Amino acid sequence: MKRVGLVGVTGYTGMELVRVLLGHPDMRLTRVTSRKEAGRMLRDIYPFLHGMDAGEIRIAAPDSGFLAEHCDLVFLAVPHGAAMEMAAELREKGARVVDLSADFRLRNRETYESWYKQKHTRPEMLSEAVYGLPELYAREIAEADLVANPGCYPTSAILALYPALRAGLISGDDLVIDSKSGTTGAGRGASVGTLFCEVSDTFRAYNLGRHRHTPEIEQELSLAAGKDIRLSFNTHLLPINRGILTTAYARLSAGAGLEQIRSCYEEFYAHAGWVRLLPDGVLPETRWVRGTNFCDIGLVVDPRTDRLIVVSAIDNLCRGASGQAVANANLMLGLEERSGLPFAPLIP
Amino acid sequence: MKRVGLVGVTGYTGMELVRVLLGHPDMRLTRVTSRKEAGRMLRDIYPFLHGMDAGEIRIAAPDSGFLAEHCDLVFLAVPHGAAMEMAAELREKGARVVDLSADFRLRNRETYESWYKQKHTRPEMLSEAVYGLPELYAREIAEADLVANPGCYPTSAILALYPALRAGLISGDDLVIDSKSGTTGAGRGASVGTLFCEVSDTFRAYNLGRHRHTPEIEQELSLAAGKDIRLSFNTHLLPINRGILTTAYARLSAGAGLEQIRSCYEEFYAHAGWVRLLPDGVLPETRWVRGTNFCDIGLVVDPRTDRLIVVSAIDNLCRGASGQAVANANLMLGLEERSGLPFAPLIP
Amino acid sequence: MKRVGLVGVTGYTGMELVRVLLGHPDMRLTRVTSRKEAGRMLRDIYPFLHGMDAGEIRIAAPDSGFLAEHCDLVFLAVPHGAAMEMAAELREKGARVVDLSADFRLRNRETYESWYKQKHTRPEMLSEAVYGLPELYAREIAEADLVANPGCYPTSAILALYPALRAGLISGDDLVIDSKSGTTGAGRGASVGTLFCEVSDTFRAYNLGRHRHTPEIEQELSLAAGKDIRLSFNTHLLPINRGILTTAYARLSAGAGLEQIRSCYEEFYAHAGWVRLLPDGVLPETRWVRGTNFCDIGLVVDPRTDRLIVVSAIDNLCRGASGQAVANANLMLGLEERSGLPFAPLIP
Amino acid sequence: MKRVGLVGVTGYTGMELVRVLLGHPDMRLTRVTSRKEAGRMLRDIYPFLHGMDAGEIRIAAPDSGFLAEHCDLVFLAVPHGAAMEMAAELREKGARVVDLSADFRLRNRETYESWYKQKHTRPEMLSEAVYGLPELYAREIAEADLVANPGCYPTSAILALYPALRAGLISGDDLVIDSKSGTTGAGRGASVGTLFCEVSDTFRAYNLGRHRHTPEIEQELSLAAGKDIRLSFNTHLLPINRGILTTAYARLSAGAGLEQIRSCYEEFYAHAGWVRLLPDGVLPETRWVRGTNFCDIGLVVDPRTDRLIVVSAIDNLCRGASGQAVANANLMLGLEERSGLPFAPLIP
Repeated sequence: MKRVGLVGVTGYTGMELVRVLLGHPDMRLTRVTSRKEAGRMLRDIYPFLHGMDAGEIRIAAPDSGFLAEHCDLVFLAVPHGAAMEMAAELREKGARVVDLSADFRLRNRETYESWYKQKHTRPEMLSEAVYGLPELYAREIAEADLVANPGCYPTSAILALYPALRAGLISGDDLVIDSKSGTTGAGRGASVGTLFCEVSDTFRAYNLGRHRHTPEIEQELSLAAGKDIRLSFNTHLLPINRGILTTAYARLSAGAGLEQIRSCYEEFYAHAGWVRLLPDGVLPETRWVRGTNFCDIGLVVDPRTDRLIVVSAIDNLCRGASGQAVANANLMLGLEERSGLPFAPLIP
Repeated sequence: MKRVGLVGVTGYTGMELVRVLLGHPDMRLTRVTSRKEAGRMLRDIYPFLHGMDAGEIRIAAPDSGFLAEHCDLVFLAVPHGAAMEMAAELREKGARVVDLSADFRLRNRETYESWYKQKHTRPEMLSEAVYGLPELYAREIAEADLVANPGCYPTSAILALYPALRAGLISGDDLVIDSKSGTTGAGRGASVGTLFCEVSDTFRAYNLGRHRHTPEIEQELSLAAGKDIRLSFNTHLLPINRGILTTAYARLSAGAGLEQIRSCYEEFYAHAGWVRLLPDGVLPETRWVRGTNFCDIGLVVDPRTDRLIVVSAIDNLCRGASGQAVANANLMLGLEERSGLPFAPLIP
Repeated sequence: MKRVGLVGVTGYTGMELVRVLLGHPDMRLTRVTSRKEAGRMLRDIYPFLHGMDAGEIRIAAPDSGFLAEHCDLVFLAVPHGAAMEMAAELREKGARVVDLSADFRLRNRETYESWYKQKHTRPEMLSEAVYGLPELYAREIAEADLVANPGCYPTSAILALYPALRAGLISGDDLVIDSKSGTTGAGRGASVGTLFCEVSDTFRAYNLGRHRHTPEIEQELSLAAGKDIRLSFNTHLLPINRGILTTAYARLSAGAGLEQIRSCYEEFYAHAGWVRLLPDGVLPETRWVRGTNFCDIGLVVDPRTDRLIVVSAIDNLCRGASGQAVANANLMLGLEERSGLPFAPLIP
Repeated sequence: MKRVGLVGVTGYTGMELVRVLLGHPDMRLTRVTSRKEAGRMLRDIYPFLHGMDAGEIRIAAPDSGFLAEHCDLVFLAVPHGAAMEMAAELREKGARVVDLSADFRLRNRETYESWYKQKHTRPEMLSEAVYGLPELYAREIAEADLVANPGCYPTSAILALYPALRAGLISGDDLVIDSKSGTTGAGRGASVGTLFCEVSDTFRAYNLGRHRHTPEIEQELSLAAGKDIRLSFNTHLLPINRGILTTAYARLSAGAGLEQIRSCYEEFYAHAGWVRLLPDGVLPETRWVRGTNFCDIGLVVDPRTDRLIVVSAIDNLCRGASGQAVANANLMLGLEERSGLPFAPLIP
């Protein structure tokens, strides 16, 4: 049984990590720290833990030494900016870290500083960090000591387009990615903009052309295409709790057809138990992956406009954050890749 | 006081027409017919009408002669296919008609038959019908006897792109329209797919590349561009009651910038009291137009990818159907264009 | 045209007042003040006001002198506690006031201080204030200079039980009131507990047996019964924006039956255009009153348990707050009682 | 590994059984029958099963012989009325059955026929059937061949009041039970009344004083009290997918206080791993039990009105139907009582 620690409990990703770990047969949450909630019991923060062992954990003040010594791995669920220093501290003391923030996702320091409007104080760690998308980097993740857990939107966008771009079946010059996310993606901070009465029964776009997840998507898809990709990435807020649905539009390369594209995806994801390629005519819905680590993908070729339309669906909290973090931890700790991860969606 | 009739009450567009007309100072609903509900009182179908005069209307069996004789105008709120014959009958007896179905929207019979998979039995009426988008055809509508009320998606898509295409500020070769609609758009028929538990807390795409509203959008935008436009139009189902948000992506023509585009839209919609061009940095939300006849438009130029992104929001039932029908009726009956139409959204 | 002022714009009741007044033919909002938002345009706070005259009002800092001098009436939409001093200041300068807070609803100072856990600094004004429930006090309201606008829950509970209690058709000893409110009732302050992701797809009870609206209900129902009533009032939070549904349980007096009770309610509300007694077998739904000033009432007699069950539905923001405030203002200003109030619900 | 069969797949309880069984280590779904869907693959009905073994089950036509022979136990998820004959057939062929319908819940045939308005064609089986509420009848369930799985509302209501009634801490003469259920409770049949647009953003009461679950609650609570109980049971429809929250009102027996009541519940549920008694001041929410087999209970004593208010929350599909059915199957098959049941709620 591996012992893991969690830094940060007030956000939805921390909460989701606790949920996922409740069902993990090989990993046990043994230490939880939080500056703000230190001293309280975990069940006081998360009332759904009443009557469970995990509820009886007393939240400690952040203590990287203790975490490094007593945990086989530490999940970092604090905001970007704060994460880089905390990760450095933990790494210095020898802890292995999965960082759920954006701080180590971008290989290029300037790109980070330009999109996140802040200095990166630990640029030397960027080359050490491995981008934690198991379908692309399972081997590197297994050996990493610092894994940068991908963003929720990038997870859905990269998995949607990677195989086709890599195989040259679509053009990289013309990509439009229209993503829609549930409101947990906006975090658990008190804010008028995400009150129930400001989100329910409405829908809006935000950050068009300038969402911070853009460079992360471009970084990985450029690697897929073997050349620099610049794409239009745009986000919307859904009145649902969990789920991202990404609709990606690409121009077909000459001669590319649905059959060939489908084969390409099937082959690329043959060994990835987490990507489900849906049959022709079936399009993903966020509820089919609710609470799970799946990424569902639907492929549509529109011959009228010579386009490939890829629709992908993930649960932004599970596959897009904490479930993916546990998948990475599984790889790092030598456990079975799917161990303890939820695959039975809660429907309806 | 103009007397108007309504054919069809079991759907959401019929219900919305009744709602809108409740507040109309110059138009009165005097006759309602329905094959299915004949004999019942309107308040039995719509319990929100208890205590109101409109609730005391007894629903009659369809009777085009009576409608033609006693009503200044008839709203047709029956499914496409059924509408063409009913419209023909009403026109033969001299009634002026606003048809909310798709039957007379497409100028080209073959296009209709190919997208709607059925024969058009009244092709001779296609040239008589006027496409009822007041921002484009106010004059023609005023003189028409048969107005084809636009589809909900086309209303939002055409208003979003028309000015820029007409002015040549964007290319027409590359358009991607990603639309999201509330569930009233799926109608009021009993169906498992639109049950509360199948729609709430989830999100899905449908009819990608093959929604029937595509040719309607292409027809009008081709007129704007002065050449044939073929575009990628794609739809999604939102877990909200009312509202369409359309995100439209277009490649900028060389040299076109935000300022110029904004001026173009301002000028084009200067006399249209229903289109609100939002200030820079403010993007539309469906709730800001909930229950109203407004179409809100936000403009974003993304210099990284040389794109114009236009976001438009309408209430699919009001502006996208029954409110627009009343606006057309206002024009046809010589009333003030905005008379009786709701402009104060219900928020939240 | 009467000129009215509004103090407080950041909450939902202020927002709703602006919405209701948009459609009022005889009353015009001419002055809006807010400590927090002074200097901004009203459309910057409420984007749905773009393109409307009301949007062009510049918010001023609180200034009771100006309000008293230039407005025929002032709506006070600030939290309880703050309201009492502001009301006093406005009254001293001669303004007529409708106070939407709880500060002047309770006739008894001790009751206020015990339930609201704070000192009442203007107890001398309590006797001047009229409880603004038009069905009970229309005449007094018309002559009042200070109207205490009822709470949302009390509006629904008092209207549900008043006639039967007054006529002695039910016992007052045994009342259980189980109320459920939409989330706008919790206000517009930033708070984790009312975030979308903490309210949607869930349901909870709160403040059982100790909600502050209890004494307000007991005060009015004691007057109805002619004796002191102590009742069990309990509240729940609904994942909807607007609406209160109250289910009230009472023991039938000997011999009382449905027919007699129905007659009693019909007579009592004969002149109240805002209460709709639904036919037998039809129970209220919050959506049938959404956005309106109606209170819908359904009556059920359960012979198995000798109980009368009364269900009432209101829109907590409109009938339960701002719409009722405008109704009171109509009475105070000598306008037609229903003038400008919305009665066409937004459905669905 | 026990082999179990499922009769009926088109409803939510069938779907939920499949979901729960996905995670069961000791029980495997080996046969699924459905008159309507025979011949299709399970994944065609439930797209969330793509990529899972269970999805590859081909649905068979109903065949009680095969089920009896090849399954250790059969779950019956068909409507009441249909269930009684199907259960008889299965029992005759030797199958052990958990029936999720209402057909065998009431010990008294006349009561069934009077509330369900239909003849009971298998009254001789009523005495054989065991009421499947594990907290009350674990021993009898273990030995039963036919278990009548409790209704969703009764599960929440009985667990809320049983201990206090049994201990005489409350009066049985005066009970009011106000329950609110998510919309899955209304089933998965196509119906206008449960369309998304008819349920979302609204709330309503239904079947006041005459819900069919009333006699089931009275039957068990009469046994608790040792005398005939007649109570007021009333239901409401929540715009959420899953969850029942029951607020139960009872008059305190002389001298009964919170401490004593809490002890009584603690003791009564000491060995029931599924009932969580929440600490003072914490009230249940449906989301805390979402997707699980828990029943959360909160106790409030209101000294002003001498009442005990008990709030209970369950997931109507899991604890209120299919999860409870699996718990019963665990007992019947000699498995660990909690085996395979979900206890980690999906939050948010």
